[in-house]
Amino acid sequence: MLYLEDFVAGQKHVSGKVRVDPDAIKAFAAQFDPQPFHLDEDAARGSFFGGLAASGWHTASLTMRLLVESDFRPAGGIIGTRADELKWPRPVRPGDELHVESEVLEVRPSSSRPGQGFVKSRSTTLNQNGEPVQVLVMNLMVQSRSAKAERG
Amino acid sequence: MLYLEDFVAGQKHVSGKVRVDPDAIKAFAAQFDPQPFHLDEDAARGSFFGGLAASGWHTASLTMRLLVESDFRPAGGIIGTRADELKWPRPVRPGDELHVESEVLEVRPSSSRPGQGFVKSRSTTLNQNGEPVQVLVMNLMVQSRSAKAERG
Repeated sequence: MLYLEDFVAGQKHVSGKVRVDPDAIKAFAAQFDPQPFHLDEDAARGSFFGGLAASGWHTASLTMRLLVESDFRPAGGIIGTRADELKWPRPVRPGDELHVESEVLEVRPSSSRPGQGFVKSRSTTLNQNGEPVQVLVMNLMVQSRSAKAERG
Repeated sequence: MLYLEDFVAGQKHVSGKVRVDPDAIKAFAAQFDPQPFHLDEDAARGSFFGGLAASGWHTASLTMRLLVESDFRPAGGIIGTRADELKWPRPVRPGDELHVESEVLEVRPSSSRPGQGFVKSRSTTLNQNGEPVQVLVMNLMVQSRSAKAERG
């Protein structure tokens, strides 16, 4: 459990890995992003992507799972309030194996919520070749240790 | 089909609606964001959220589906390259009914990719009370009509 006081700019952590199978790409797309280049190899060949590619929201969701399952454990959970940046520099392809490398950028107490604060972190999702497929700069709400002590 | 030339700042469009059932919240969380406040009513009561709440990535994914199923049809598909803003001002609760209201903010040709350009749009996801649950400012890559003409 990491409280606000435990976070310092520059801290880094690395997640485990997840393999992205073609069936997972299509299943996510069928539910949330039903466009031909996420659903069907043949249709994808003639598209901007030139082949089947995962939805960016699938990549974002897998990134979240990797973070939740990693040893990055802010007190109260991983609660994002706002992303300052979210980009997908290259597509995720069937068979890609992803992991997430994160770095704390900034730590500050909340002015409106006593006992809470914000941790800004950059999480870069990389494929098996070390190429970034997503960059996410997120503001997380984190409980301070003092607040916990007050509550007993 | 809307080409780059068809987009103008200020254009607005409204999506259909989707209802968010508790089972959908838990199923998404089990797959992508397995934290107690997204998975279990009892555990959620003692959390920051004070009750079951959808993962922000679930809200983002449902927003994408509403956009894909709406009459917002850029040529080549809805292809986001970068979000300049993504925030969740309040949680999505079981039973909430969401829709998306979007506005084109900016249209500009790509300097590196001839025949392509970018449409920046703000998509606000609202619940049944008209309260925003997500604000997304996204840069979409859109094909120009001239590029299509050249390709025949």
